[in-house]
Amino acid sequence: MNAEAPIAIFDSGVGGLTVARQINRALPHEEIVYLGDTARVPYGSKSPATVRRFAEECVEFLLHFQPKLLIIACNTASATAFPYLEKNVDVPMLEVIRPGARAAVGATTLSRIGVIGTRATIASDAYAEAIAAVDPAVEVVSAACPLFVPMVEEGRTSGTIVKAVAEEYLRPLLAKHIDTLILGCTHYPVLKPALQEVVGGGVTLVDSAEAVATAATELLAAGGGARAAGETPPRFYVTDTPGDFEDVARFIWPDWPGRAVRVEIGRTWLR
Amino acid sequence: MNAEAPIAIFDSGVGGLTVARQINRALPHEEIVYLGDTARVPYGSKSPATVRRFAEECVEFLLHFQPKLLIIACNTASATAFPYLEKNVDVPMLEVIRPGARAAVGATTLSRIGVIGTRATIASDAYAEAIAAVDPAVEVVSAACPLFVPMVEEGRTSGTIVKAVAEEYLRPLLAKHIDTLILGCTHYPVLKPALQEVVGGGVTLVDSAEAVATAATELLAAGGGARAAGETPPRFYVTDTPGDFEDVARFIWPDWPGRAVRVEIGRTWLR
Repeated sequence: MNAEAPIAIFDSGVGGLTVARQINRALPHEEIVYLGDTARVPYGSKSPATVRRFAEECVEFLLHFQPKLLIIACNTASATAFPYLEKNVDVPMLEVIRPGARAAVGATTLSRIGVIGTRATIASDAYAEAIAAVDPAVEVVSAACPLFVPMVEEGRTSGTIVKAVAEEYLRPLLAKHIDTLILGCTHYPVLKPALQEVVGGGVTLVDSAEAVATAATELLAAGGGARAAGETPPRFYVTDTPGDFEDVARFIWPDWPGRAVRVEIGRTWLR
Repeated sequence: MNAEAPIAIFDSGVGGLTVARQINRALPHEEIVYLGDTARVPYGSKSPATVRRFAEECVEFLLHFQPKLLIIACNTASATAFPYLEKNVDVPMLEVIRPGARAAVGATTLSRIGVIGTRATIASDAYAEAIAAVDPAVEVVSAACPLFVPMVEEGRTSGTIVKAVAEEYLRPLLAKHIDTLILGCTHYPVLKPALQEVVGGGVTLVDSAEAVATAATELLAAGGGARAAGETPPRFYVTDTPGDFEDVARFIWPDWPGRAVRVEIGRTWLR
């Protein structure tokens, strides 16, 4: 592992910045290269085949930077494309599902975990499988929340409408008396205060972003690949014009350190 | 104009079926070829440059069918890509903005028209310009409604949340005492009952789909290109897997007559 190489992160759009921000906090000496596929966002309402194709193209772009670690910060891409990418790419790779699942199993005391995410993530059952792999005795109940991403992208993170939508989505989970809730989409941490109000103080919210930062720190330490010093400004790339991305970026990451550059990414390569 | 040629229609996704359905009602003898760019939906939150590129690729695909008429059923693409496409494509073309604007000017008695649409459509000011071209004395007030499309795609078309969101979006328009409201996005006709309830009976809702069907009928009649008899089943193409599209299609178009076929569409060609 070349310690000087960057950590590459991609997401369907701006949501993965919640992960990039945690990586930046946990590993301040590392160089981050981020790609948001904003021209084709969202992934969460699309088919696994299409998400896999888009994810391939994102990875292909990021491999040009010869990263020492590749992080799939998008839950939908993690849920549908990770096994395929892992088989075909020769760079250590992290996704967001398993770290989130492990953190949630560590947090639950009643062994009842709720999972919320996009339609594609919930349909994939990836969280239920990842949780079962850690502890098969844990009961998992999930709900797709398709309005949360457009709400966050609209800058709508509190207020009566957010609360009403959250109450509707979370009602079946609360009826099952979960004590832990996985925020299974990188957009959702922005909704944390509103969600915490709806679920009440007795439910622990698990944010994959923190769990992934921990996993990345462990992986670099184990491989002897952590940078010991220095600070390199992160680089941000997007597939649509940077303006809107930067507006939401500053909202997700208040001291967001960069500007984004537009790139065109190519066609399928792995098949 | 070859009367036997089909009418080609494209939209970013499933919403343009509201237009296809009206065309099918108004011109039952015509063959319809429809393309929904479901892999990259939505267009409404993306930049004009990206929407133009996507629209080009949709048009390129549809030109293979040698249509006698091409209809841009997407308001966002109409607002941002139509002038460019019209200059570069040698097929009669209709978009949805001007027919909707004309219908609204015909409907308003107080000369105050409201327009709702996606962020990109509202930012383009295309409706205000089209209305001013018909009657510069009409006052136009507009609002972007980014949550309406995901709501419709979720199958959420009534209920307290829809009403609360609609009330919030429409409040500034109602404060200006509009008497006519343009539903400036092909998804919105599905929300008509809920919107009518919020704006009250005194406001006329103008649905571009009907206005475009009228414009298409006139254009074919003027060019002598209408089919006099016969019935050819419409063809539907999508860029993502057909399943989800078909579910929403049946919801928008209850007696939806088809199945959708997945296609890959290419890269930019006109530049």
